[in-house]
Amino acid sequence: MSAVRESFESVAVSTRMRLARNFADYPFPGRLLQDAHAEEQAQEIVRLIAAALAGVDEFTLYEMKNVSPERTALLLERNLISRDLVRNRRISAALISSDEIISVMLNEEDHVREQYFMHGFDLPRAYERITGLDDAISESVPFAFDEQFGYLTACPTNLGTGLRASVMLFLPAVSRRGVMTRTIVPELLRLGLTARGAYGEGSGAEGDLFQVSNEVTLGVSEEQILSIVGKAVDSIVQMELLERCRMKAEGGIALRDKLCRAYGVLTNCRLLEEHEFLRRLADLRLGLALGYFTDGEEGDEWMNELDELAVAMRPANINRLNGAPLEAQEQNAYRAEYVRTAICAMKLSAD
Amino acid sequence: MSAVRESFESVAVSTRMRLARNFADYPFPGRLLQDAHAEEQAQEIVRLIAAALAGVDEFTLYEMKNVSPERTALLLERNLISRDLVRNRRISAALISSDEIISVMLNEEDHVREQYFMHGFDLPRAYERITGLDDAISESVPFAFDEQFGYLTACPTNLGTGLRASVMLFLPAVSRRGVMTRTIVPELLRLGLTARGAYGEGSGAEGDLFQVSNEVTLGVSEEQILSIVGKAVDSIVQMELLERCRMKAEGGIALRDKLCRAYGVLTNCRLLEEHEFLRRLADLRLGLALGYFTDGEEGDEWMNELDELAVAMRPANINRLNGAPLEAQEQNAYRAEYVRTAICAMKLSAD
Repeated sequence: MSAVRESFESVAVSTRMRLARNFADYPFPGRLLQDAHAEEQAQEIVRLIAAALAGVDEFTLYEMKNVSPERTALLLERNLISRDLVRNRRISAALISSDEIISVMLNEEDHVREQYFMHGFDLPRAYERITGLDDAISESVPFAFDEQFGYLTACPTNLGTGLRASVMLFLPAVSRRGVMTRTIVPELLRLGLTARGAYGEGSGAEGDLFQVSNEVTLGVSEEQILSIVGKAVDSIVQMELLERCRMKAEGGIALRDKLCRAYGVLTNCRLLEEHEFLRRLADLRLGLALGYFTDGEEGDEWMNELDELAVAMRPANINRLNGAPLEAQEQNAYRAEYVRTAICAMKLSAD
Repeated sequence: MSAVRESFESVAVSTRMRLARNFADYPFPGRLLQDAHAEEQAQEIVRLIAAALAGVDEFTLYEMKNVSPERTALLLERNLISRDLVRNRRISAALISSDEIISVMLNEEDHVREQYFMHGFDLPRAYERITGLDDAISESVPFAFDEQFGYLTACPTNLGTGLRASVMLFLPAVSRRGVMTRTIVPELLRLGLTARGAYGEGSGAEGDLFQVSNEVTLGVSEEQILSIVGKAVDSIVQMELLERCRMKAEGGIALRDKLCRAYGVLTNCRLLEEHEFLRRLADLRLGLALGYFTDGEEGDEWMNELDELAVAMRPANINRLNGAPLEAQEQNAYRAEYVRTAICAMKLSAD
């Protein structure tokens, strides 16, 4: 039987880096919203940032008030915009790169929220990219900066560096074995970090996915944030890998049965509701991580493939793939068909 | 999509014919058992029948008192002996042909119970075989026969012809749609017939299998019994085929999902408890009957294959296949492995 995979890539799914920035000469978006005559100022912010980004990459501008509900849901599901941005839709906008790796939200909680996304775990690279973007914008835009406090933000929790470094972790073993709530979450809090469910604040950890990120942005340097988050992730990954070995040893055939059945259902069902999909997908991922199935490759490319599949199978994404909106049951049928085809195409073999 | 299969073979699984006979000069087995000195008489019956059968076919003699509990369980599961035969084990025996098609039980409720089994539905052929056997035995053995009553039996319900004609029917549609209890069972009773669950009297209809047979043996000729049972089976088969079409039309994708998931579980699980196996197997059979899967063949040979698989996966049969007794959990693992291999080998494809 194949051994438990011991790679970082079988745990750390993706890295996300965010910077909060504001213009020195404009009221924060919350104030802009309250003032009926401030729309011009809000538009000016959008115009300035769009101009600053013109030379950096290919960006699409979404002025939220003009974006259809379907498109809005799609962008939310793809983590390219936030619920706050939608709430501010009268004045808010997003600039999204064609490869969907960079998203710059405008007039969200702050004037500017720069985001960078990448598969895998690489804080230095993600930080290098986001600062490259930030430098390019800063050349033409004077951000509000205070010698004592650092970057000024609408909410004090983002004051200082304005940096949030997040890593998405697949943690079936520590989560299912209780180590997550018992040990990891308290330790993260002590370090000024949090672990959120994958689908944003308030969501449970559906699919055994957790987003670990820093809460504190003030009084620490960017380097310190990266170091704290990086070390925490290192440590959580080691704990997860250890617990996976224990889980496999203790779980025996009953665990194997559960995970193999998930594969059987995903490759044969004709209706697949989203929650069941996420649960079975987590079981399939765990099966791959534990070496119960293999795609015959050395690496853990399956992690990215399955991550993209999870995003593609969210409701608004399904509607886009289908080219027209579907009823709930039709969605479940579409999801079943798509997932079956995708997972069969991975040519997994049971070990 | 493939059409619903409309063959008899997709409904009628097997035919079983039984004759009850007694020696004129010996007390019935119930009396023999009560008399400590009657063992010699019981042995004489066994000896006489064994001798009569010597020229007919290759038979193995099982004197039940010498048969191990494991072997006894195995024979019970294969429907080659009855619980009554086991109860009478002090004096009872069975002669079983090497192909397991003929079983002659001795000193069960009657001195002699001749049984013939065949795949598919063919009452005339089964009757021809059982009477051929009966003629061969009768040549050397004088059976108790009364001009008025016919063959004499220990229990009045078997008096007369001593003939029970049984057909095993796979009835998922009429059973799941309530037609079985609402219409078919009362009609069978009216005709002097019964429908039992596949696993003998008292068992529920596990696996959607029902054994239809005559209850009355007195006052009707063998030909009448065959005719009544045959017509009832014809009629039930037509109702089942009709209900399958309705079921497919009304069940839509939810039904297809359920049946395809059964295939997914059977071909991927690593633990399979017997009741779940029978439930999923019935779903798989139904899927084949409805044309959701196909084995690429014109005929319905899969019906026999799956029927043999069901018998092979009963607990004592698993122990024999394994060569040594297994604990419950080990049985479930063995069953999962065996079923997975068997069903994968059928190379079914989803339509």
